[in-house]
Amino acid sequence: MTQYPTRSKEVADPVLIVGSMAFDDLELPSVNAKDVVGGAATYAAYAASLFSPVRIVAVVGDDFPSSVLEDLTARDVDVAGVERAKGKTFRWAGRYASNLASRETLDTQLNVFADFRPKLPASFADSPFVLLGNIQPQLQLDVLSQIKAPRFVAADTMNFWISGERKKLGEVLSKIDTLMINDEELRELADIHNIRRAAAAVLNLGPKRLIVKRGEYGAMLFDDEGVFFTPAYPLEDEVDPTGAGDSFAGALLGYLAASGTLDGPCLRRGLRLASAVASFCVEGVGTAKLKAVHRADVMMRLEALRSITKTGG
Amino acid sequence: MTQYPTRSKEVADPVLIVGSMAFDDLELPSVNAKDVVGGAATYAAYAASLFSPVRIVAVVGDDFPSSVLEDLTARDVDVAGVERAKGKTFRWAGRYASNLASRETLDTQLNVFADFRPKLPASFADSPFVLLGNIQPQLQLDVLSQIKAPRFVAADTMNFWISGERKKLGEVLSKIDTLMINDEELRELADIHNIRRAAAAVLNLGPKRLIVKRGEYGAMLFDDEGVFFTPAYPLEDEVDPTGAGDSFAGALLGYLAASGTLDGPCLRRGLRLASAVASFCVEGVGTAKLKAVHRADVMMRLEALRSITKTGG
Repeated sequence: MTQYPTRSKEVADPVLIVGSMAFDDLELPSVNAKDVVGGAATYAAYAASLFSPVRIVAVVGDDFPSSVLEDLTARDVDVAGVERAKGKTFRWAGRYASNLASRETLDTQLNVFADFRPKLPASFADSPFVLLGNIQPQLQLDVLSQIKAPRFVAADTMNFWISGERKKLGEVLSKIDTLMINDEELRELADIHNIRRAAAAVLNLGPKRLIVKRGEYGAMLFDDEGVFFTPAYPLEDEVDPTGAGDSFAGALLGYLAASGTLDGPCLRRGLRLASAVASFCVEGVGTAKLKAVHRADVMMRLEALRSITKTGG
Repeated sequence: MTQYPTRSKEVADPVLIVGSMAFDDLELPSVNAKDVVGGAATYAAYAASLFSPVRIVAVVGDDFPSSVLEDLTARDVDVAGVERAKGKTFRWAGRYASNLASRETLDTQLNVFADFRPKLPASFADSPFVLLGNIQPQLQLDVLSQIKAPRFVAADTMNFWISGERKKLGEVLSKIDTLMINDEELRELADIHNIRRAAAAVLNLGPKRLIVKRGEYGAMLFDDEGVFFTPAYPLEDEVDPTGAGDSFAGALLGYLAASGTLDGPCLRRGLRLASAVASFCVEGVGTAKLKAVHRADVMMRLEALRSITKTGG
C-alpha cells in the first residue's frame, strides 16, 4: 500500500482558494437542513487542508459565524483574505430528488457576494497553487493578476458563465493549467456531446489538462499522456452531495501542493485521492463529515478505491 | 502486457446462448437503418465467438437470412438450436436520442418469438457455460432444466419481467450463478436506489455474483471478494449502442469459457475484456463493427482500457 502524498503537510506548499462562502438551505431526502454553512471555497478549503496549508479569498456577511473561520484557522487555513462585509452572507436553497441524482434551486440570494471584488492580502501574492472557484470569469482574471508566477492554476466554471461570458471565459482558459468542470458543462462549453471529442476541443482552448467531474460515476483526466478515470467510491449511505465537487477540487490541489511534483502519475493519484475525499463529503450534511475526516480515513478509502479497478490475481 | 485469455479458442469450453434473433429498425442520430440483423443472442454470439465455441438456441422466421446463420457457423457458432418457424422474425423499431443516452421503442412485433419454446438439441445438454438472455423467466427455467450440471449460468432480465413475473424471476435467481442487469433494472428489482445496497439485496436472492451494466459509465461486479469496476472505453465515435450490453455478456461468457477458471481475478479480467468488446459494438450500426473485430483488436483496446485506471509512475 503506497501512502501518498509522501510529504507531510508541514512542508507542503500553500493552496490559494477563491470562491463562495455561503449558507445553504437543503431539502434532502433524509432531512431538511437550514443555515448549513457551505460555499465552494468552504468545502474546498476543508478538503485541501487535509494535505496542505490553505489561503482563502472570499466574502461573508456580518451574519457568518466566526466559529467557522476559527475552525478553519485551526486547520492551517489562512482566512486573512475573507472579507467581512456589511450585510448578509450569500444564501442558496435547493431541493434534491429522492435519489440525489438531481437537484433544483429554490432560491439564490447573492447578498454580499453580489459586490465581491476579490482582493488578495499581500502575503497571498506568492501562492504557488491556485484554485479559482466558480465565480465570474473577470473576477477569476482579477485574482490571477494579483498572483506572482503561480506554479499551478486550476479553475472551475458553470453553465451561467459558459453561455453568458464565453469570451471572458476564453481568456481564463488561456491562462490556466487545468479546467475542472462537470460533464454537462463540458458538453456545453465544447458544444459536442461526445466526452472525448469535447475534451479535445476544450484542450484546444488553452488548458494543459481537463478534469471532468461525473458525480456518482467518478472523474476523468485528459492530458498529454491520455485519459485517466477514477470511479467514485460506491457509498452505502449517500446523504448530501452538496460540495462534493468542490471537495474533490480542494483535495486535488491540496494533494498536488503536498506532493512536490506535477507529472502524469501524480495527477492521476491526485484524482483518485480527491475521489476518496469527495466521498466522505457526501456522507454528511454540509461539511459535517468532511471536516471530521482524518488523513488516515482518506488513505483507507483510497486503498479501497484503488482495489475497485484492480483485477488482481 | 498480459495477453488474456491464455487458452486458445480451440480448447475453450462451449457457451450456450439463449435469446432473441431479430430485425431492428433503428433511427440513429447519424443514420436511419432498416432490417438490421440484431437480437440479444445474435450480438452475444458474435462477441462470445471471439473466444470460445458457441451454441445458439433461438427462433427465427422464414424471412431471416440464411447468410447470417452461415456467417455464424463459420465462426464456430453451432446454430442447430436455431429453430426456423413459419412466419416473420421478431422485429423491434426504436429511436435514439441525439446524444444516444436514451431511446424509445417505436414498435415491437414479436412474430415467431411469441411462441418461442426453447428446445435444446441433445448435443447442447452438456453445455458448461450458459447465458440466459432476456426472455420470460419460465423459459429461462425450461432451458436450465434441459442442461446437465452446467458449470456457470448467467442470466439477463428486464423491467417487464421484474414487475410482471417477480415470483418466477425469483426462481431463476435461485438457480443461476450470475445476474447481469443494468443499473435501472437493479434498482427496480431491489426497490433500493443506492447501487451498493441494492446489490447486497439482490445477492441475497440467490446469485453468487451480480454484474451491473452502466452503459457509457462502465460496469460493476459484486461478489464475495467485494466490488470491481471497469469503465467503458471512451469512444470518439459512438454510432449505435444497440446490442452493446448483449455483446458485453457474450464476451464475458466466451472469455470465462476460454480461461479455464472462475475465480475473482478471472471474473474481473473478464469484465474489462467484455467492456472492450462492447465498445466495438457501439462503433458500428448493428453487428457491423462487432463481427469485423479480431481478437488482436480487442487485446489492444483492453490494454488501453486498463491504462485508463492506472496511475502509473
